[in-house]
Amino acid sequence: MPPMNPHSEAPMHVLYPISGNPPTWGHGDIMNRAARTFDKVTWALAVNPNKTYVFDEALRRRMMQDYIDHFGLSNVTIDSYHGATVRYAERIGADAIVKGLRNHQDMQAEMEQAMGNSGMNPNIETLAMFCSPRYSIISSTLIREIAMLGESIEPYVLPKVAERVVETLREKQLIA
Amino acid sequence: MPPMNPHSEAPMHVLYPISGNPPTWGHGDIMNRAARTFDKVTWALAVNPNKTYVFDEALRRRMMQDYIDHFGLSNVTIDSYHGATVRYAERIGADAIVKGLRNHQDMQAEMEQAMGNSGMNPNIETLAMFCSPRYSIISSTLIREIAMLGESIEPYVLPKVAERVVETLREKQLIA
Amino acid sequence: MPPMNPHSEAPMHVLYPISGNPPTWGHGDIMNRAARTFDKVTWALAVNPNKTYVFDEALRRRMMQDYIDHFGLSNVTIDSYHGATVRYAERIGADAIVKGLRNHQDMQAEMEQAMGNSGMNPNIETLAMFCSPRYSIISSTLIREIAMLGESIEPYVLPKVAERVVETLREKQLIA
Amino acid sequence: MPPMNPHSEAPMHVLYPISGNPPTWGHGDIMNRAARTFDKVTWALAVNPNKTYVFDEALRRRMMQDYIDHFGLSNVTIDSYHGATVRYAERIGADAIVKGLRNHQDMQAEMEQAMGNSGMNPNIETLAMFCSPRYSIISSTLIREIAMLGESIEPYVLPKVAERVVETLREKQLIA
Amino acid sequence: MPPMNPHSEAPMHVLYPISGNPPTWGHGDIMNRAARTFDKVTWALAVNPNKTYVFDEALRRRMMQDYIDHFGLSNVTIDSYHGATVRYAERIGADAIVKGLRNHQDMQAEMEQAMGNSGMNPNIETLAMFCSPRYSIISSTLIREIAMLGESIEPYVLPKVAERVVETLREKQLIA
Amino acid sequence: MPPMNPHSEAPMHVLYPISGNPPTWGHGDIMNRAARTFDKVTWALAVNPNKTYVFDEALRRRMMQDYIDHFGLSNVTIDSYHGATVRYAERIGADAIVKGLRNHQDMQAEMEQAMGNSGMNPNIETLAMFCSPRYSIISSTLIREIAMLGESIEPYVLPKVAERVVETLREKQLIA
Repeated sequence: MPPMNPHSEAPMHVLYPISGNPPTWGHGDIMNRAARTFDKVTWALAVNPNKTYVFDEALRRRMMQDYIDHFGLSNVTIDSYHGATVRYAERIGADAIVKGLRNHQDMQAEMEQAMGNSGMNPNIETLAMFCSPRYSIISSTLIREIAMLGESIEPYVLPKVAERVVETLREKQLIA
Repeated sequence: MPPMNPHSEAPMHVLYPISGNPPTWGHGDIMNRAARTFDKVTWALAVNPNKTYVFDEALRRRMMQDYIDHFGLSNVTIDSYHGATVRYAERIGADAIVKGLRNHQDMQAEMEQAMGNSGMNPNIETLAMFCSPRYSIISSTLIREIAMLGESIEPYVLPKVAERVVETLREKQLIA
Repeated sequence: MPPMNPHSEAPMHVLYPISGNPPTWGHGDIMNRAARTFDKVTWALAVNPNKTYVFDEALRRRMMQDYIDHFGLSNVTIDSYHGATVRYAERIGADAIVKGLRNHQDMQAEMEQAMGNSGMNPNIETLAMFCSPRYSIISSTLIREIAMLGESIEPYVLPKVAERVVETLREKQLIA
Repeated sequence: MPPMNPHSEAPMHVLYPISGNPPTWGHGDIMNRAARTFDKVTWALAVNPNKTYVFDEALRRRMMQDYIDHFGLSNVTIDSYHGATVRYAERIGADAIVKGLRNHQDMQAEMEQAMGNSGMNPNIETLAMFCSPRYSIISSTLIREIAMLGESIEPYVLPKVAERVVETLREKQLIA
Repeated sequence: MPPMNPHSEAPMHVLYPISGNPPTWGHGDIMNRAARTFDKVTWALAVNPNKTYVFDEALRRRMMQDYIDHFGLSNVTIDSYHGATVRYAERIGADAIVKGLRNHQDMQAEMEQAMGNSGMNPNIETLAMFCSPRYSIISSTLIREIAMLGESIEPYVLPKVAERVVETLREKQLIA
Repeated sequence: MPPMNPHSEAPMHVLYPISGNPPTWGHGDIMNRAARTFDKVTWALAVNPNKTYVFDEALRRRMMQDYIDHFGLSNVTIDSYHGATVRYAERIGADAIVKGLRNHQDMQAEMEQAMGNSGMNPNIETLAMFCSPRYSIISSTLIREIAMLGESIEPYVLPKVAERVVETLREKQLIA
């Protein structure tokens, strides 16, 4: 590799991909911290077309917007993509990929994905940010389970997101 | 916290602190990748005045320079500091701290340090980069042990660094 | 929260929930130790109505009774429930939930569930008991796999339970 | 072992041992939750006579009392002991030992100690309680390091404890 | 158990079972190292009749042969089997089972399987070999995911295997 | 590397190194299983001349002999060595190094050592054997701690070894 520094003095743009089903305080916190650390953040839904989501793409993007509004951020753009994360990062001109790390189990999975990504394009680094301890045990899966039991998910998501989750589960008659 | 983005369009400067006793291919790889991802890297020796190091500060800095020369980088500055990493980052105007993650044991220690750092200054993020798998098991401690047994450390450090390590251990009469 | 001690001198009643498909020596050991530590134990099957079990509810309860008989315990009651574990604990007046911990992978899952439970009712604590080392690798899943291969599961379950497992798999023509 | 239930209807008394150098919000939280779950808690300093502590025994006990006062608890007694934890539990008539679990590294160490304890007296169980996520990364070691750097430890300990820590380090001329 | 040494001076034959969907450089490396350590290696596909594989049995065996040809080994035999690994080891007269260990998550799963195997026949040991660091993150699952995205898997498998994977995915119209 | 199989039909000789301070049931179990799996085992004390051991070299070797006698094995030789394990393996003509794995923390340390060893001589493999679950939590350190408290270590070592441990600690006036 020739000596070079590809980002010379240009604003730094990072991609923060999530599946966000639903987006949690943990996701919102990483997004907010990325927005304060980098010049520009694309917060994108990684959509797997072979998977069905309890919360549809439009709704998940609306919930992501709820967090951006809550934090009052102007340098974050919401988007969605299919396929390899690195190829999407190239298309939008992102300099790096940001991921949140909660614990040692996340770590193994993220390490594997980061290695796969750097095999596709070694110029796009994965930068891991540690989840705040108070969010380090929250997962979208746990939140769906709790909501499906008819229990409150207020501690784990933004109040407006909690409302949308409950409303959607009621519309789908998944809870009373 | 008011909505803001403190780095707006300015070059991004990161601090990559190591104890580097000696600096390994693992350290060199993270430094090189940081130099290609960010505008400016300060690669600094974290010096603990209560600790004795087999390799003195001047030598460790010379070995760090060997890696910079090897990779031909011009946006990396070497430095040393005492005391809290975050306070040093503030003094040099770094926007974030970069750390290398090798495995799940590193992870726990780095998470604890990142939390401590964000308690001191929440505006200076810790960004973790995953070590390349081939360097994920190398530690300075292992390398010192191997060198002290009189065995070759060529697979784990830059050739010039291996030379300096052997030379120093011979001068100190730690090996024959 | 006001200063208070809700269990003042009353007998202590704990809930030990399992899915028990089938119940192992590991489960039996935790149940027995809970029965010797607390005044009253409700050993309950957590039934997920969306899941099919190789061993039906009645059979799993009979196998749980086999362990109680084996240990000769009189302060353990068997029951089953649907829905949130904490709500069931409230209904039966349990003071705490007991769980068995085998290894660091269990730990992460149990920590997540305990946090979810305390979000629903912070007055019902989760108390984890460490599995005896000799049972720390046994799982119901492993036992089902071994039994399905037609191999003996005697080291992992009570002899009477082993019999019932084999009998059931034969009736269902899952083994010869 | 004969069928029996040794605690029949008597109040349940647990021992919560810490080294507490200094006691953290994590320790205080487990103590408070134990006090609300069990009838009586002995919160004891495990003193290793071969070890020197930055904070002496009297001070550590005073800091423990600060947490008890903060939570307004009347069923917690402070004490100190040397030697095997289980033998001390026997002497004070405790029914079980309570420990806090923060993460998978704690888990391995606690599992080893619990096995050692049950080898000495199988009737005294170890009951592990999961640390609240927001305290799961705090350790006394990290707090000492931060305080020694002259940085605030307010997020990690009770304000009165933070004061005592700083005061003591100043008296010992460990910080300015 | 009577004192005995069942392998007295006979050649040592080991079984190295994989599911190999597809076989990776990680698998090839362990197989090669086993072939250099033991007298005879049976490298066998563990076929689960209830599972569908992207790459059929004949193809997976052909890809395994590619690695044997690459390393130029003459003491490795390819085979396939259904059912318990230990029973297959008995049928072919293997003295031990070899497994590759990549990280702490593999470790837990392999420990469980080794315990299950030794429950069936304590005379057939499981011998774990550590994957070379540079292969320690590669999994067949990751490789399938990358190949399905139409990306190159050259870093993770033998070139000839990469060709066969792409060819097969094209024939099955899973990629363009 | 040229195609070759260096052990062609010769008896297989393995080195099982321990520090054995004191040797536990865990060590004895691995040694016994190695003796039943391989033709010849050298069970060697790795002696670090810079370290002081509670139990001296002669005593540790006598305790190792106790386990060999207990299992009635004739193909195990006891020895001691200084320096690099791999170089000692070369001197005695061992084909491979056997290590015991207890849990995921051992795993990381053993992986690092195995990588260091293979850097010195790639022809001498490290073969890890999983400790029996009932011995998976026993460590020499825990046993010394328990013995120093004057408590029985009978569950963790051979009865004759327990006697020697107690006798030695009494002679050294470390216990009453």
